[in-house]
Amino acid sequence: MATLCRPAVAVPEHVITAEETLDLARSIHADHDQLPLALRLIENTGVRKRHIVQPVELTLRHPGFRERNETYEREAKARVPAVVRGALDNAGLSSADIDLIVYVSCTGFMMPSLTAWMINTMGFRSDTRQMPMAQLGCAAGGAAINRAHDFCTAYPCANALIVSCEFCSLCYQPGDVGVGSLLSNGLFGDAVAAVAVRGEGGEGIKLVRNRSHLVPDTEDWIAYSVRETGFHFLLDKRVPTTMEPLAPALVTLAQGHGWDASQLDFYIVHAGGPRILDDLSRFLHVEPEAFRFSRATLTEYGNVASAVVIDAVRRMFEEGTAVQGHRGLIAGFGPGITAESALGTWMSVRAGLAHTEVPEPRSPRAVVPMQGADRL
Amino acid sequence: MATLCRPAVAVPEHVITAEETLDLARSIHADHDQLPLALRLIENTGVRKRHIVQPVELTLRHPGFRERNETYEREAKARVPAVVRGALDNAGLSSADIDLIVYVSCTGFMMPSLTAWMINTMGFRSDTRQMPMAQLGCAAGGAAINRAHDFCTAYPCANALIVSCEFCSLCYQPGDVGVGSLLSNGLFGDAVAAVAVRGEGGEGIKLVRNRSHLVPDTEDWIAYSVRETGFHFLLDKRVPTTMEPLAPALVTLAQGHGWDASQLDFYIVHAGGPRILDDLSRFLHVEPEAFRFSRATLTEYGNVASAVVIDAVRRMFEEGTAVQGHRGLIAGFGPGITAESALGTWMSVRAGLAHTEVPEPRSPRAVVPMQGADRL
Repeated sequence: MATLCRPAVAVPEHVITAEETLDLARSIHADHDQLPLALRLIENTGVRKRHIVQPVELTLRHPGFRERNETYEREAKARVPAVVRGALDNAGLSSADIDLIVYVSCTGFMMPSLTAWMINTMGFRSDTRQMPMAQLGCAAGGAAINRAHDFCTAYPCANALIVSCEFCSLCYQPGDVGVGSLLSNGLFGDAVAAVAVRGEGGEGIKLVRNRSHLVPDTEDWIAYSVRETGFHFLLDKRVPTTMEPLAPALVTLAQGHGWDASQLDFYIVHAGGPRILDDLSRFLHVEPEAFRFSRATLTEYGNVASAVVIDAVRRMFEEGTAVQGHRGLIAGFGPGITAESALGTWMSVRAGLAHTEVPEPRSPRAVVPMQGADRL
Repeated sequence: MATLCRPAVAVPEHVITAEETLDLARSIHADHDQLPLALRLIENTGVRKRHIVQPVELTLRHPGFRERNETYEREAKARVPAVVRGALDNAGLSSADIDLIVYVSCTGFMMPSLTAWMINTMGFRSDTRQMPMAQLGCAAGGAAINRAHDFCTAYPCANALIVSCEFCSLCYQPGDVGVGSLLSNGLFGDAVAAVAVRGEGGEGIKLVRNRSHLVPDTEDWIAYSVRETGFHFLLDKRVPTTMEPLAPALVTLAQGHGWDASQLDFYIVHAGGPRILDDLSRFLHVEPEAFRFSRATLTEYGNVASAVVIDAVRRMFEEGTAVQGHRGLIAGFGPGITAESALGTWMSVRAGLAHTEVPEPRSPRAVVPMQGADRL
């Protein structure tokens, strides 16, 4: 058994509102012949504000790939530990209980991965397995959950920790002025999210089955061009149409477990944009309200890449309406185009404790404040 | 059960000999005040020749990170398919039999990973799981084997495919002139390696246990600095001393399975350099001859990063002296400093067939020739 516990999420202290985003687009791209379209697309995202690791003025400057990546490393080291401690506390685990760290991030590149630094500085055992994945983009949130699930299936007493560190603002490319880039500049936000998957005990979503799906011949629809200036995000205008070919894979996953994808109790999906949620509602025959956790993440934080699904799970815990046995779907979408989806059942702490001796979460801290004192 | 089958490996057609390497170092760094030391270190590697994806003249030029990475993608697409087909044939599997692709490479960066392209063009199922890992460096060969093993433990009927694509020559940085960089310039080579891990049946190394180990506080000993010019490889001079703190982790792994690490029948380890093999021989109390597969890879191909352990396994298959029940150790070493080690038992095809109905390998092709016709 593998239980996805209560996540911890933190967003940075610098905020950019939808109005500020639109004003910036108007002033920076005043002469852009597709500015009205870009503004409309940005407005349609429904994103009200985003949080970013640096003030807007610094974010808009490109100091070079090296400095950008050094900023990524510095900010990750400053912000990840508190979130990780929050996730461990929420799961009633300590660092030493963790057997696998899945670290997903597509907005900075370190070798060795941050996992080595975490093991050295945060009390993880020296035999903790490291699974850093940088190339799955927004789908990595779902992939991390699924690989942690697989790991706990192989080692039923093991615990995995998922860390998603996404500083999308560090991939802002002033020179990219296509409509897709202008939209991306108004869509993506920064966040750090962490969540433990317990092999035994714990309260949360008992993971029961998972599946990957690649939509054929769409590998250049969402992609990075890797250049002297860093990662350039390429977004094809066909991307919002992908729910039609993807929805059947989610239906198939549910059917394989004897479930009806349109009749589940909760839905946690990657909120790449509003069209994705609208279409999924349509193709799965599910009320739009079912995607309220994902939509709230999109509205309040923007698209925080692989952290979206983890933050949506956090919001579901906060709502507190899930009861023992509720069935649901988790799905991350990203480059490939790949869907990493999972089925799970809500397991309340009382039911969990009936089977194993597990302490209650030490102090539920779903949102970890990012404070100056935490920063380097 | 998870069986590591017969690998396929290909090295590029462009060759640089030890003499050419030394001549180049002498002419490029004629004024370098530590040239004699660098030449001695290069000679001591024992590398006789290396294979690289471009002619030497092109390799020595740095056309920019973007062009380098485009070359990586083009060469990977040209060279990976034949090696993958070879590995599948060796394992008696087709693309459609593969449930997980573990793609490891630290010498180029693509998002989506090459796994998406492979699924789209090589007949893999659209639900094949993708596990691309770019941040484990040379340890990724061991990590890939271990994660494939874990996956087959979770899903006993599943099959995994490991692909290692390392074009170290595309990380040559003309501006890096420290002794560590000069040594690296004479040490690393290019190779593509692939190997299947069968959940059921097959001939090869039955994987029985694995372990990760991070040597504390060495995370900056082997590292990339990510810059406008791409990945800059930083090699601390203390790296060759790491076998002393790492060897006990290998001993512990063996002991946990009731085995004596000094009394095994075969050893497949990452040949980062000759000192690593010499020290491991000393600290594990094993004859130097035991590391002949790794040493041959180092001598003939140089350090081909995550591909070393897979090529060493290939050489063990070619030697053909392993018999049913032989016990051995596999270990990859890399940034972290991380060791990803495993224990395995030789399983002959006759013994494998006794349990399951598995066809014999279609046509054992351990080394896949890289021919012009295969290239884009």
